[in-house]
Amino acid sequence: MTDTEVADWWGTAVSRIEPDHIELRGIPVRDLIATTGFGAVIWLMLRGSRPTGAQARLLEAALVAGVDHGPHAPSIAVARITATCGVGINNAMASAINTLGDSHGGAGQECVELLEEIVARSTVPVETAAAEVVAQWRARGVRYLPGFGHRFHTRDPRRDPLLALVDEAAAAGTVSGVFARAARAVETVLNRGRTTPVPMNVDGATAVVYAELGFPAPLARGLFVLSRSVGVLAHAWEEMGQGRRNKGPIPPAVRPTYLG
Amino acid sequence: MTDTEVADWWGTAVSRIEPDHIELRGIPVRDLIATTGFGAVIWLMLRGSRPTGAQARLLEAALVAGVDHGPHAPSIAVARITATCGVGINNAMASAINTLGDSHGGAGQECVELLEEIVARSTVPVETAAAEVVAQWRARGVRYLPGFGHRFHTRDPRRDPLLALVDEAAAAGTVSGVFARAARAVETVLNRGRTTPVPMNVDGATAVVYAELGFPAPLARGLFVLSRSVGVLAHAWEEMGQGRRNKGPIPPAVRPTYLG
Amino acid sequence: MTDTEVADWWGTAVSRIEPDHIELRGIPVRDLIATTGFGAVIWLMLRGSRPTGAQARLLEAALVAGVDHGPHAPSIAVARITATCGVGINNAMASAINTLGDSHGGAGQECVELLEEIVARSTVPVETAAAEVVAQWRARGVRYLPGFGHRFHTRDPRRDPLLALVDEAAAAGTVSGVFARAARAVETVLNRGRTTPVPMNVDGATAVVYAELGFPAPLARGLFVLSRSVGVLAHAWEEMGQGRRNKGPIPPAVRPTYLG
Amino acid sequence: MTDTEVADWWGTAVSRIEPDHIELRGIPVRDLIATTGFGAVIWLMLRGSRPTGAQARLLEAALVAGVDHGPHAPSIAVARITATCGVGINNAMASAINTLGDSHGGAGQECVELLEEIVARSTVPVETAAAEVVAQWRARGVRYLPGFGHRFHTRDPRRDPLLALVDEAAAAGTVSGVFARAARAVETVLNRGRTTPVPMNVDGATAVVYAELGFPAPLARGLFVLSRSVGVLAHAWEEMGQGRRNKGPIPPAVRPTYLG
Repeated sequence: MTDTEVADWWGTAVSRIEPDHIELRGIPVRDLIATTGFGAVIWLMLRGSRPTGAQARLLEAALVAGVDHGPHAPSIAVARITATCGVGINNAMASAINTLGDSHGGAGQECVELLEEIVARSTVPVETAAAEVVAQWRARGVRYLPGFGHRFHTRDPRRDPLLALVDEAAAAGTVSGVFARAARAVETVLNRGRTTPVPMNVDGATAVVYAELGFPAPLARGLFVLSRSVGVLAHAWEEMGQGRRNKGPIPPAVRPTYLG
Repeated sequence: MTDTEVADWWGTAVSRIEPDHIELRGIPVRDLIATTGFGAVIWLMLRGSRPTGAQARLLEAALVAGVDHGPHAPSIAVARITATCGVGINNAMASAINTLGDSHGGAGQECVELLEEIVARSTVPVETAAAEVVAQWRARGVRYLPGFGHRFHTRDPRRDPLLALVDEAAAAGTVSGVFARAARAVETVLNRGRTTPVPMNVDGATAVVYAELGFPAPLARGLFVLSRSVGVLAHAWEEMGQGRRNKGPIPPAVRPTYLG
Repeated sequence: MTDTEVADWWGTAVSRIEPDHIELRGIPVRDLIATTGFGAVIWLMLRGSRPTGAQARLLEAALVAGVDHGPHAPSIAVARITATCGVGINNAMASAINTLGDSHGGAGQECVELLEEIVARSTVPVETAAAEVVAQWRARGVRYLPGFGHRFHTRDPRRDPLLALVDEAAAAGTVSGVFARAARAVETVLNRGRTTPVPMNVDGATAVVYAELGFPAPLARGLFVLSRSVGVLAHAWEEMGQGRRNKGPIPPAVRPTYLG
Repeated sequence: MTDTEVADWWGTAVSRIEPDHIELRGIPVRDLIATTGFGAVIWLMLRGSRPTGAQARLLEAALVAGVDHGPHAPSIAVARITATCGVGINNAMASAINTLGDSHGGAGQECVELLEEIVARSTVPVETAAAEVVAQWRARGVRYLPGFGHRFHTRDPRRDPLLALVDEAAAAGTVSGVFARAARAVETVLNRGRTTPVPMNVDGATAVVYAELGFPAPLARGLFVLSRSVGVLAHAWEEMGQGRRNKGPIPPAVRPTYLG
């Protein structure tokens, strides 16, 4: 009985671990190691069954798109600073991943929710639905729609390659394409009457991919963590090789004295 | 001049971010998104150039092997507990990754160091070098050689598939195979005169892969973080779907009253 | 000009660091070290000026109340698990503090918000205001009012000593007592017609203290972090002294085999 | 029997939690709340019994000394950056505390070890012991002795007030004063023949306090975490009030374009 209660408390459908036997989502790990790519295993672990090759390729494209945005991104800056403080590389990665919150990584999640809300209005054309939902979000006080606009890029270089892949996948029947249409409809609504466009950014484009592939919104953030962890590791490792100790944000030579 | 100092302070060879342009290791991200798998991009970010297909497949096999070891592993337990506390999924992942220290994930790193030390003794046969290095580590007081033995599995089910891939890669000339020979030599030394064998475990087998592929030892831990993050995410997400709040380690019904 | 921009970007009223000189909130640290208790410095750092002795004592009472709730609390369990994984004691503390989110530590913050909302209705008696606000929160779908009820204690042993101190402080004119009256009014509303009472818990009682002392709601969570960090450290340190490696949540002897 | 095993697995001497009853180190929390300051409870939780008033005051002085060193300290920079990313204030604090590793906070721990090693040589005068131990550490390749020298202050303003308190406590018989003598002896050895002195810094002075009070070395780091958490919270809170989103380390106006 105790065992039953413990089993229930820590029960999981994700993996099964017995002496000399490990299953991931019901598949012996020994059968996965040589046959299944890392992207496909990510899908398997999150969804419970294997993806098709086309699904795995589309997922991997979104994962590739988010790996890095340079040392000015909070996640990367925190990784590099922490890496100089005498902790393990996993600790530097943890501090960095901890920054991927609602405003730094959460936009993808919110954009999936936006697109789902639009697509759910299935009785009107997607363009109408987009206009209605945008108006409602604005009425609720949302100033910046998640996944649209960028303070640095005029047109995010990751956007078009991702959308092109979604279009191909829609043409091939891998995905429906309805979320891509919803996202483009939002873009049209946003840019009506504007001289400076507010284009879909990388969070928007990856949200389209994740929504098309059927990932629930919170996993958009989780997948971004997996993606950005790669850049976080690369930068932490590079910084560790440079030998600084207790790196501050501003180079000593240019900071005001009182910054210490 | 200020710009130069700032550039130097935050300078990086990992990525280059300009308005409407992003390069990862000198390659425009737009050229990577559709063409390069996630495993190959991990390699690119950490090593500076693209892997061959055979190298990428071997790396992905090691990444697949480490994704999960069930809810009793500290990383997974911490992920699930934290996920019930009203924080973001990235925060649950960060707490979990923070546990991947010297004794939970660090064994791979230490095993790469062990194998490197053996392989560096190039003037004697690898079997002799293994016996010498093991004797020296034992003389230093090391009781458990990193990468060998397991308190749960008698023969880790991830070991043989990984070693088989290394053997294939050595036969094909993708890797030298010298680290696999060193690891097997350690196993022989360890088991001399024992009735209960102390076989190479998953940390040892992945260390062989990483060493054969030329990754420096600290990256063995970093790569394990990338791998285990997948299981961490899958478990945190499953736990969030079960709706518990502030989950403790012991189910309420079986814990002594004074545990709270 | 650059210096001005850097100064603005990293500008702070909290501290001033110059060669051989450190000020905390405008006071040289050398003048604080021998004269000012730790609780008073916590107040100074968060509020910008020194507390009276009575204010500092009341703050310290709330900090004392929250330090520990045993190894079944997620923060303590995570601290102890992480401490066995070969990381620094600061990393074990960080993983633990990361768990103090909306449902594990956030209740104090939300309870301050609840009390502020009640007290802001200054044109009606506080009892009326409490009934109105509780009704509104319930109408919004809030099932558990933050700071009231406990799944383990019928009457939290930290509640009465804290409220007694607030009553004394109100009698002495240190605080107004209006938030204590609001909290008791909520309790009355909640228990109307119930046979099992839903008493104010420790989150409620500390929220009363923090609100009476004028701390904004988000700092209630921050102060709880400072408080609980003490228990987190004590437990991490005790665990490290016991020499376990990679402690799982369930003792090996009683866990189902497949938990690993 | 199961209960016994669970009790053993999660057993603790730190606290006892029963319905309606909480003990910290054997003392009901209700008896602590009104009577015992925060510093004294920190001592109680870590040491198992209450401190004298003089011991508690000396401990609090060391805690006060470490709370903040401005936004250029990695812990504070990371707290402020993370606070702008849409996470809880506890998450910003966790990322910051995670940075307090071997080189940023660990010096106090290492300095306690240094002083203990000197004091343990009780058969020779402390000056001789200091010279011998410093020579041995240097022979091992240690370039910077922990607790001595500062890249920013010529004489750390927190040093003299702390040492004066230790001297007073030694005169009053609260502490022995032997660790203070050991630390000053190290200083003398270090400065022999130098024109630029290498004075004891704040890590050294707090190490003297903690060693005199009988705290084991690893707790020096733990106590520093408790201390610095105050500054971390004050800065995170201030930053959150300024409304920036995804703050990078360099102000946009002065950073090179390619930093993103």
